[in-house]
Amino acid sequence: MDEMLMMGKQVLAAQPFSVLIGAELTGFAVGFAELKVPVKHELKQQHGFLHGGVVSYAADNALTYVGGSVLGPAVVTSEFKINYVRPAVGDYIVARASAVYAGKTQAVCRCDVYAVKDQKESLCATAQGTITKIS
Amino acid sequence: MDEMLMMGKQVLAAQPFSVLIGAELTGFAVGFAELKVPVKHELKQQHGFLHGGVVSYAADNALTYVGGSVLGPAVVTSEFKINYVRPAVGDYIVARASAVYAGKTQAVCRCDVYAVKDQKESLCATAQGTITKIS
Amino acid sequence: MDEMLMMGKQVLAAQPFSVLIGAELTGFAVGFAELKVPVKHELKQQHGFLHGGVVSYAADNALTYVGGSVLGPAVVTSEFKINYVRPAVGDYIVARASAVYAGKTQAVCRCDVYAVKDQKESLCATAQGTITKIS
Amino acid sequence: MDEMLMMGKQVLAAQPFSVLIGAELTGFAVGFAELKVPVKHELKQQHGFLHGGVVSYAADNALTYVGGSVLGPAVVTSEFKINYVRPAVGDYIVARASAVYAGKTQAVCRCDVYAVKDQKESLCATAQGTITKIS
Repeated sequence: MDEMLMMGKQVLAAQPFSVLIGAELTGFAVGFAELKVPVKHELKQQHGFLHGGVVSYAADNALTYVGGSVLGPAVVTSEFKINYVRPAVGDYIVARASAVYAGKTQAVCRCDVYAVKDQKESLCATAQGTITKIS
Repeated sequence: MDEMLMMGKQVLAAQPFSVLIGAELTGFAVGFAELKVPVKHELKQQHGFLHGGVVSYAADNALTYVGGSVLGPAVVTSEFKINYVRPAVGDYIVARASAVYAGKTQAVCRCDVYAVKDQKESLCATAQGTITKIS
Repeated sequence: MDEMLMMGKQVLAAQPFSVLIGAELTGFAVGFAELKVPVKHELKQQHGFLHGGVVSYAADNALTYVGGSVLGPAVVTSEFKINYVRPAVGDYIVARASAVYAGKTQAVCRCDVYAVKDQKESLCATAQGTITKIS
Repeated sequence: MDEMLMMGKQVLAAQPFSVLIGAELTGFAVGFAELKVPVKHELKQQHGFLHGGVVSYAADNALTYVGGSVLGPAVVTSEFKINYVRPAVGDYIVARASAVYAGKTQAVCRCDVYAVKDQKESLCATAQGTITKIS
């Protein structure tokens, strides 16, 4: 495994909430981050879909990672917006984020979240936000 | 306890993810919803603050509740945006949502999230979004 | 007229686009800004309503003003989101912005835009965004 | 010129505000829309850049067009968010919008706005929003 992905995985392992959710960092390179979350019972809402809060967690965290990949590790998500387009059902979700713009202290990034069932991906949400370097 | 709040609490209890997080519905009336989440270890990120994903979960869920309070119970959050303004530290967070506009099928709502320490509240995030009736 | 409002009006008069639109700054104090735009033919869309672009201009500019009122004059709007809730019809629109949070370099602000007809106001849009100090 | 683009140009010509701004529809197909606005004096702000309100107008209108391309002509922009990443300077701006998701009544779309100088494009803003069918 490459060094950058390994470092990213260590950061995720240090986030108790990400451990609780069972998130896994599956891709991390300059300008790209990919995060997976399994669809399991305790992450659902009352209709059996993955809770929207889990989908937005995945988007938010993937955005922070991709922002960090272009700005350096000390970053936070300042703001983001998310559009939910389909209920998240399936085996797991995968959030793929990319950097649209990187300045000295801020990056504007996007993230698509897919629900995956039997290896077939369906878009379930899309997000856009600002990642800021902590000075 | 009034009937509306009781019904709201039952819905929350039926969301496994909300149970996992330990969220509590503390206010629910037409045009208003309030949700509390305790700041506990397993909800934190690597610097000891409450994970942003928990803050956005609280905002998202409070927005859905308040949308439901004006549109009827069968609703989803279609989209929202959130600005994080301070790290969430303290004893718990409280998300307070209100409806800015309610049409026949959609409501536009806002939510402020406060971190509370020794009963002192500090704004940690603010959100705005669209709640849609499921037909 | 107080000094702050007068200064704000001078800035608006120096913006050719605001002059083209016919915008007027009607309130400007620390943490508050109010901007009016007349509903006139050349600002409309094909159905006779004020063009959404004029509504978002008013929200964006009021947000910048209120951000400047708490951060100092050299600011830009970094990002904002707007929800349109009703077509803008009437005599004029008024955008009222307030600061929700002000840090050293950024402020998070909100703006409600009302359409006014025969002195009766109806909410037509609501916005939230980040204003950033230019260093 | 193809029929769809011609129809789109007629709609734009029927929007007095788009005529005032001098916008031109330069691309229109299912899932794609492109709008150009010249950088001229009366569209600027006080520092000589194109006013943010013009950039957001272009994004908003391109989003509406692309939403209409997948949902049918009777649509409105319900909400959008925009991140400004660079001041818009140059000869003109071009807003390119695509549909990320199209349902029966709503589409989620994205738009990148570029400033063009001597045929060189620089991203100046990026937007994401919801377009809704009018029933």
